Amino acid sequence: MNLEAQNNQYLINGKPSAGVSTLDRGLAYGDGVFRTFLVKNGVPHHWALQYQKLSQDCQALEITCPGNEELLSDIETLFNQTTDAVAKIIVTRGESSRGYAVPAGIQANRVVLKLAPPTYPLSNQTQGVNLHLCELKLGIQTKLAGVKHLNRLENVLARMEWSDTKIADGLLMDCDDNVIECTMSNIFARFGKKLITPSLDQCGVAGIARDRIIQSAKRFNLDVKIEALKLDKLMQADEIIICNSLFGAWQVVSFNGKQWAKQGLDSQLREMLLN
Amino acid sequence: MNLEAQNNQYLINGKPSAGVSTLDRGLAYGDGVFRTFLVKNGVPHHWALQYQKLSQDCQALEITCPGNEELLSDIETLFNQTTDAVAKIIVTRGESSRGYAVPAGIQANRVVLKLAPPTYPLSNQTQGVNLHLCELKLGIQTKLAGVKHLNRLENVLARMEWSDTKIADGLLMDCDDNVIECTMSNIFARFGKKLITPSLDQCGVAGIARDRIIQSAKRFNLDVKIEALKLDKLMQADEIIICNSLFGAWQVVSFNGKQWAKQGLDSQLREMLLN
Repeated sequence: MNLEAQNNQYLINGKPSAGVSTLDRGLAYGDGVFRTFLVKNGVPHHWALQYQKLSQDCQALEITCPGNEELLSDIETLFNQTTDAVAKIIVTRGESSRGYAVPAGIQANRVVLKLAPPTYPLSNQTQGVNLHLCELKLGIQTKLAGVKHLNRLENVLARMEWSDTKIADGLLMDCDDNVIECTMSNIFARFGKKLITPSLDQCGVAGIARDRIIQSAKRFNLDVKIEALKLDKLMQADEIIICNSLFGAWQVVSFNGKQWAKQGLDSQLREMLLN
Repeated sequence: MNLEAQNNQYLINGKPSAGVSTLDRGLAYGDGVFRTFLVKNGVPHHWALQYQKLSQDCQALEITCPGNEELLSDIETLFNQTTDAVAKIIVTRGESSRGYAVPAGIQANRVVLKLAPPTYPLSNQTQGVNLHLCELKLGIQTKLAGVKHLNRLENVLARMEWSDTKIADGLLMDCDDNVIECTMSNIFARFGKKLITPSLDQCGVAGIARDRIIQSAKRFNLDVKIEALKLDKLMQADEIIICNSLFGAWQVVSFNGKQWAKQGLDSQLREMLLN
């Protein structure tokens, strides 16, 4: 399997490179952050928000964030202007020999990857999606909560819980049985005109799509609340929506033994998110 | 800073290589495990135990563990027989494009690194060490507890809490205020003839040195108990010992505002662990 040859291209610190250092702390400790987003006709989608979140996440880990211009230059080099693709940016704290201590003068490394555009079934939009209830419970770590860091073994193990291709994502709760998010998306539950999304101050990843829905809910005549959400309350929702920057929004129509009729909020949100 | 040039050498899947794939899940998600151990005159120290733990950790994450012979061959290639050094083995789940799902047929990658031997102050042995009480509390994740996986941001952030070179390590508690371990070592507390080490079924890394002390305590006329340990009880210990495979064992003589007189158990344990 040579994935590198499958039309994937990348730059490390702005240059073509044979690979990542074996001493990179991103590999050694997951000591870094990442972003994944659409690039449409060569233009990174909602770049200002992506860069703002990348900067905030770097700051949370005290990693020096690469400059806006450097990253835009990398994207311009990698992405041509006629096709759509996905960009992934990985920023690591840099390289060090053995040991957790951070050497003075360490320099962050940036990897920018060009990846194939996502291919999701059209039925996820037209008919809605099925959600798995994950057995794995997210650990609580306030110092990492909300940050899209490279310590993602919980997501990997949770995603290993199902192989049924009809399941679009898995719902994650924390160890206190609060609903938090899905393995690759954030979640919203609508109750009448009220839209609830879980607080992410204990665990979870606060994505751009979630932020944008929160900020634009008024436009859809909805009142957003960020608050704790238990499973039994989620099950009573009029509508459940999951979202991320790549697929936009999908409605959940089957979860935990219950079905929901397909409604229209997901397509309104998707249009807002993907355009 | 070119650390690669500082006499570090490595093999990736048994071969000299320019670097790790940017699509390696070890980098993307910390999706892998590692071991660090002494190699004395070309011979990996307590290899059988290290390989057993590597296999167990791979199994915990459902990663295919590299063969014993392959790893020994890598070590033989990298380490000459006249000097002492440190080996680090990283095993990742392999490479995949975007997304947490594990592709069918994925092949694990192994990186074996030759690193410089550790240089700790001799006073750590002769006078004992100072321990920092970490503010960061370890999250609870039973599916990862005990495993030496690559999701080590908690250790990194905890280690960033101090820069005083007189502090040897930092003590970590979980979010329920149980004493668990230190950032790079396990911990034992002696009360008379009873030696307590915290249970690691909720979080923490179960190291080889800890296992070896547990198994050989009888030889030192000590009775080992693996049980929950609160901070206030730890403060009442007759003696506190920290241990890992590289430095063996050190006695803690200063921690959380209290001093302990230097005693002799650490040197007995160190001799057992390092020989």
